[in-house]
Amino acid sequence: MSLRGVVAELLSCANPAKPIVSLGVGDLSSHACFRKARDFSKYVAEAVSSGDFDGYPPSCGYPFARRAVADYLSRGTAAAGGGAAATVAEHDVFLTCGGTQALQLCLATLATRGCNVLLPRPGFPPYEATCAMHGIEPRYYDLLPAAALADDRTAALVVINPNNPSGAVFSRRHLLQGPEPARHRGRALRAHGLREAEFVPMAVFSAVAPILTIGALSKRWLVPGWRLGWIAVNDPSGALRQVKMGIERLMNISLGPTSIIQAAIPPLLSPSCEEFHRQVLGELESSCDVLYKMMMEVEAFKCYSKPQGAMFTMVEVNARLLPGIGDDMDFARELMREESILVLPGSVVGLKNWIRIFFGVPTTTLEDACDRIRGFCERRRGGRPDHTAILPHSHRTEKAGSEKTREYISPV
Amino acid sequence: MSLRGVVAELLSCANPAKPIVSLGVGDLSSHACFRKARDFSKYVAEAVSSGDFDGYPPSCGYPFARRAVADYLSRGTAAAGGGAAATVAEHDVFLTCGGTQALQLCLATLATRGCNVLLPRPGFPPYEATCAMHGIEPRYYDLLPAAALADDRTAALVVINPNNPSGAVFSRRHLLQGPEPARHRGRALRAHGLREAEFVPMAVFSAVAPILTIGALSKRWLVPGWRLGWIAVNDPSGALRQVKMGIERLMNISLGPTSIIQAAIPPLLSPSCEEFHRQVLGELESSCDVLYKMMMEVEAFKCYSKPQGAMFTMVEVNARLLPGIGDDMDFARELMREESILVLPGSVVGLKNWIRIFFGVPTTTLEDACDRIRGFCERRRGGRPDHTAILPHSHRTEKAGSEKTREYISPV
Repeated sequence: MSLRGVVAELLSCANPAKPIVSLGVGDLSSHACFRKARDFSKYVAEAVSSGDFDGYPPSCGYPFARRAVADYLSRGTAAAGGGAAATVAEHDVFLTCGGTQALQLCLATLATRGCNVLLPRPGFPPYEATCAMHGIEPRYYDLLPAAALADDRTAALVVINPNNPSGAVFSRRHLLQGPEPARHRGRALRAHGLREAEFVPMAVFSAVAPILTIGALSKRWLVPGWRLGWIAVNDPSGALRQVKMGIERLMNISLGPTSIIQAAIPPLLSPSCEEFHRQVLGELESSCDVLYKMMMEVEAFKCYSKPQGAMFTMVEVNARLLPGIGDDMDFARELMREESILVLPGSVVGLKNWIRIFFGVPTTTLEDACDRIRGFCERRRGGRPDHTAILPHSHRTEKAGSEKTREYISPV
Repeated sequence: MSLRGVVAELLSCANPAKPIVSLGVGDLSSHACFRKARDFSKYVAEAVSSGDFDGYPPSCGYPFARRAVADYLSRGTAAAGGGAAATVAEHDVFLTCGGTQALQLCLATLATRGCNVLLPRPGFPPYEATCAMHGIEPRYYDLLPAAALADDRTAALVVINPNNPSGAVFSRRHLLQGPEPARHRGRALRAHGLREAEFVPMAVFSAVAPILTIGALSKRWLVPGWRLGWIAVNDPSGALRQVKMGIERLMNISLGPTSIIQAAIPPLLSPSCEEFHRQVLGELESSCDVLYKMMMEVEAFKCYSKPQGAMFTMVEVNARLLPGIGDDMDFARELMREESILVLPGSVVGLKNWIRIFFGVPTTTLEDACDRIRGFCERRRGGRPDHTAILPHSHRTEKAGSEKTREYISPV
């Protein structure tokens, strides 16, 4: 059940009488409000017009583009107080076709058939698909310290932070619970780094265990169609020397990202783009407020925390309060049939009876979508008024603090 | 031993006193003489500036771009007399990251672990690398009817035409020797289609056996860095229904080509680009004449036919006439050390003691390179004059007609 397969199936049942609002796929690029602060296209237009980037780029990427990624990541770790071990150089960076190729290369080189990797739940489906392809066993951890799952066949612990589907940004203390057990095994870890907001890059802990950092232009620069990602290897002890050679060998026989996009990396990753990122974050925060308000008002939803470092949030659906809805897939399908609103069933990211909602849409669109979701849930309850809408906020806070779930979403 | 790995090793031993001439990698794009007739960059610049192609494209490519590839291929088969079965529609076409991802997807869906595929020798290393990755046995055929090699585990016969390393363009009669045995097995075939010159697309034979056609912008449009390829499925009998579904599923979990390059496909594949292709062919023919003359003059080279539909040719090296040279790898390394000229050792494409020479460079550059290769071979012979240089042409023709080799390069 691939994410794109499920989305295609859901879209095919839309209500033709209502405009589709997609809260299913994480793509800010289609909304002008997020794009207005940037003019990235000129860098690519210049690169293609020059004719200098038509030929084969080097397997691991143009040196100047690899250097720009290394500088960008090293600025991030320095800002988080990382020492010399947390910096990366040009030869530590490999440019890939988006984050997807990056994670495929990492898993293919870190793990062999019969190994396992520890994946977060909720997570991202491409990790599982890659495991299946290479005979690697995925083991899931519920955003809790994963040490208990690891054994001598554990090849890697995957940490997705920030921009993981839960919406949480992990604290320094929480993140360190990952590398600590790995230290005793000398094995690798991995992290996504897409947004900031109290964000601590995993590379800061590379003195504890080697880190492979995966990133991409897609979400943060709003250009998923451009297909540009990277792997950066933080390996002060040299434990990943073989893995790094494996990545190089695989890149020699596969295709890297499009040359003209590589050519645009230095300006895109320069500090001058920070203002653009701040503006996008501002827009996202407004949308997040709108969504959070609705989620707190609908009785059938359990929402445990407000998203911090993502454009997604996960919400638990209490199907018993929604007659006719059996599970998360039902919820998404019926919502599409009646209201033409696309949300992602949590099963796709490993959490049955949750749904993942993307809120990177203009606030007015989101307000309309929230009204329609509210109406959908109310109609399911047989027209009864939604009492929860008037419950005091303190009640909600208490709910959010219940033992199990508190650990789950915000473990520290 | 990957092609790019060998090239990198060779480049590292260049003679610093002489300018490097690369006759090793098939990339016309770095030479202005081939680019002068085109202005392709404007299509990509327009696409990126519009902002309309920043988001995720559909897994299998934008419908309008798939349709443009289908129309392009169908024009080609119609020109070669192919009937309705030889045409393809939008839904038969999948857009890929260059030809490499296309062949990886085809092999991964056609063959399972323990199957075999029949590969041409000389061929292209990515086919072997993909076989190794998926536990598929590669069996090599010497550009001869491959029926004898096939058994009940044979998943596909790979035909590279035109632009295969031998430089030959296969005739209709020769090509039909491929599908004929496959007809009895109902299995698939595959063909590259990059240049024209009496070119008969394999799809013309899809009534005999189903055909998967792989192509790419890279060589023919001189933009290998843009990473845009395709698979087209010609399957009038429906024998490849499962394979097609497999490709769709794999594309759902992997990345397709960059959106803004997809957006430029319709103008690039329109008939208005034919004039550009004619100009490139004219330049290539001049270069081919220069190279062929040199190859016929050097006694240590055995050249069996003049290239027709490629920008490469293969030449056999008689190491006994070159003291100090043990094999093709030695030849390439020593040529690089003394003359800074890059040629590809035939071992990389499956032919030991041959070298592959790329001639898509300006004629003046190629004349200089040929002089340096001639000088290199003469020096190896101890300064003795090269007698072959004055042999009458008829002698050469006779050589080219010897039994084994005639079959090898030009089998019909």
